[in-house]
Amino acid sequence: MATVELIQYENSYGIVRKVYDDIKSTRNTDFINNFWKALANNPELLEKTWNQVKTIMRSGAIDSLTKEMIYIAVSVANSCEYCTHSHTASAKSKGMTTEQYNELLEVIGLAHQTNGLVTTMQVPIDEVFKVEWITKCFWGDSNGKYKRN
Amino acid sequence: MATVELIQYENSYGIVRKVYDDIKSTRNTDFINNFWKALANNPELLEKTWNQVKTIMRSGAIDSLTKEMIYIAVSVANSCEYCTHSHTASAKSKGMTTEQYNELLEVIGLAHQTNGLVTTMQVPIDEVFKVEWITKCFWGDSNGKYKRN
Amino acid sequence: MATVELIQYENSYGIVRKVYDDIKSTRNTDFINNFWKALANNPELLEKTWNQVKTIMRSGAIDSLTKEMIYIAVSVANSCEYCTHSHTASAKSKGMTTEQYNELLEVIGLAHQTNGLVTTMQVPIDEVFKVEWITKCFWGDSNGKYKRN
Amino acid sequence: MATVELIQYENSYGIVRKVYDDIKSTRNTDFINNFWKALANNPELLEKTWNQVKTIMRSGAIDSLTKEMIYIAVSVANSCEYCTHSHTASAKSKGMTTEQYNELLEVIGLAHQTNGLVTTMQVPIDEVFKVEWITKCFWGDSNGKYKRN
Amino acid sequence: MATVELIQYENSYGIVRKVYDDIKSTRNTDFINNFWKALANNPELLEKTWNQVKTIMRSGAIDSLTKEMIYIAVSVANSCEYCTHSHTASAKSKGMTTEQYNELLEVIGLAHQTNGLVTTMQVPIDEVFKVEWITKCFWGDSNGKYKRN
Amino acid sequence: MATVELIQYENSYGIVRKVYDDIKSTRNTDFINNFWKALANNPELLEKTWNQVKTIMRSGAIDSLTKEMIYIAVSVANSCEYCTHSHTASAKSKGMTTEQYNELLEVIGLAHQTNGLVTTMQVPIDEVFKVEWITKCFWGDSNGKYKRN
Repeated sequence: MATVELIQYENSYGIVRKVYDDIKSTRNTDFINNFWKALANNPELLEKTWNQVKTIMRSGAIDSLTKEMIYIAVSVANSCEYCTHSHTASAKSKGMTTEQYNELLEVIGLAHQTNGLVTTMQVPIDEVFKVEWITKCFWGDSNGKYKRN
Repeated sequence: MATVELIQYENSYGIVRKVYDDIKSTRNTDFINNFWKALANNPELLEKTWNQVKTIMRSGAIDSLTKEMIYIAVSVANSCEYCTHSHTASAKSKGMTTEQYNELLEVIGLAHQTNGLVTTMQVPIDEVFKVEWITKCFWGDSNGKYKRN
Repeated sequence: MATVELIQYENSYGIVRKVYDDIKSTRNTDFINNFWKALANNPELLEKTWNQVKTIMRSGAIDSLTKEMIYIAVSVANSCEYCTHSHTASAKSKGMTTEQYNELLEVIGLAHQTNGLVTTMQVPIDEVFKVEWITKCFWGDSNGKYKRN
Repeated sequence: MATVELIQYENSYGIVRKVYDDIKSTRNTDFINNFWKALANNPELLEKTWNQVKTIMRSGAIDSLTKEMIYIAVSVANSCEYCTHSHTASAKSKGMTTEQYNELLEVIGLAHQTNGLVTTMQVPIDEVFKVEWITKCFWGDSNGKYKRN
Repeated sequence: MATVELIQYENSYGIVRKVYDDIKSTRNTDFINNFWKALANNPELLEKTWNQVKTIMRSGAIDSLTKEMIYIAVSVANSCEYCTHSHTASAKSKGMTTEQYNELLEVIGLAHQTNGLVTTMQVPIDEVFKVEWITKCFWGDSNGKYKRN
Repeated sequence: MATVELIQYENSYGIVRKVYDDIKSTRNTDFINNFWKALANNPELLEKTWNQVKTIMRSGAIDSLTKEMIYIAVSVANSCEYCTHSHTASAKSKGMTTEQYNELLEVIGLAHQTNGLVTTMQVPIDEVFKVEWITKCFWGDSNGKYKRN
């Protein structure tokens, strides 16, 4: 039901083929999911997006599985069904346990609920949350922690 | 600019006072942020919501800082300014480093971008992402990992 | 902070003045809120939108106060701060009680939460919810009610 | 297409079975819709969510049908397809007439339109809509009504 | 899977038939897409909406194809699958080239990404972007252009 | 009110200074807006994002002003206030007329309205809108146009 054709591996060449091969070797799999096959209609965007995903999603200061869970959270809030599916599969492939999934679900549900409550009541931002205040008073104190009291 | 009055601690009593005191002792602070002061107009909802937040946001299978980052991700996607502010402050108070914040920012930006691309192209969900397939073929295999090839 | 100028009543003429006067007489007030003053930069759109609001928001099969509460719900979910403010004021002016506001808040919070849960889990739509099924089996039965069992 | 398995009644036990039975007796039906079957993967969240839905959605200061219409409004704005389907079915089962549905549709459409217009023009919030002003001048006046002039 | 029945042309009469015939003659086609068939359950809303679409979407200061691309952008951000499909088809029918589609995709992806970044960082609005400043200093200067320096 | 500090030009060095200078020379201005000053806390992301914006937003198959209007449409639907402000200013600086702005407003309002209507009614996607059908039957016909009848 895409609005573009899906470019299959056997019909790919040039930049697209190069990216497809990099996906395969990076992920150690023959499977290329539909997002890339759709994006391949714009080879330059395919290459840039793949490079971003490869660079940003690997473990760094935040580990790779946590990044997938953050990705799921954004995708759910944006109602992106495909992204929710693909990053849930991805998180599972990176070892997300049932316990972690259950807590992820609870946090996402809670965040949506309180987002709705806050916006309904138009809660004004506490002075203490503003960066000028945080920067001046807390951030960079001796133990590197910010405290609210 | 709230659509409700903010109930100050000194004007609180009953359930509201009890929850305020629990917030103070749980967080080891005298500071009560505006969300609770707004919610206090509905004491029962205040109590339920605080209990949910207290229970769900503590470390479990997912650690407390990661939960705050997931909360930020949801709040950003829902354009909840207050929630973005309060949970960023919260994440900092729980030790989020500048490096972690920078990666959080990158993941959120990337997720929004690919959400937009996927929805524009209406990418169809790969069979492999569907739970029937995952359940039958991968989930629960010998090493507990799901693999896509 | 608007991206357009606000057209004040004393500077209005033609269609804009006509609409401003209709707002005043319909609402029995001298107050014209900023939405109309901003929209007045496009007089034709001002007129059409005011006519829609006037027609749609009056009591019919759904009473006027309920319509305001539905409007608040949409505005919150769309993170429209101005709209949340203006329609909350409007609902209060039409008699929304504190008890009703508190329940509205609960329903909006709950709906956001379950929306988040449902989208995370990608719950498939039950056959029984599809219109073909409803139409054939239930809708239009002797007592005009749809039952799920 | 869920990202979790649907737990059928005949495979349920413990908390899940207890909640399933409560859904059946509360709604006087044998039908359990997929949302609960998906949520059952997290029995504690299932129980809490069902209790919230049962408590919040019953008639109070706002009647039960109106609450369903508010729920639909939120679900539409959040693009939650399942929720839109299930709460439309629910509203019909509670007696929503074709005339009411038509007006609901008009209000939802109008609210979305004006949300878009307001956000495009970044309309500043009128002083009169702010709670300080409302509280001081109107709320609680002799006839319990807020007036804007 | 609609929540309403689709009214087919052969079952239409009165206002609905009149609108259907106007759609056919305006678009020079026998094809009536599902949006109108669903909306036909509310004949008055059908008529108003069709008149809005017909009036607003025709070429004016902004050409008709550009309007379709703006429509796609809104529909994607609102996660409206049907609207994304129908307006992509519409844009193609009005001559959108593959090159234009590719750039549209890039702009939509970029805008989502930077929206996410801006909201995460809660970037304060530059004074220069506020209308008071624009109006006073630039708008309407000799060459009709606004400059930021 | 940002959640990060704004890095001023005089305090910038290295990559950040280089990007700031490129912004200045590319835009022929001394003004650097807050988005870049916030993003400068993550110099690598600043550089990548600026390069994307510079590359994607220049005139190509779609002209630069049209791209700004598409950007506004996305930003409004995502409720990004800053982005709405900055890209409206940008569009004006590129020559957007009052007439174009008025039509942009109308299209954005209409698209939001019909998005809401479509999602409420859960309109099923017409077969004719699916890419398989479009690709097979219309795309690439003699006059390069897709027709729906």
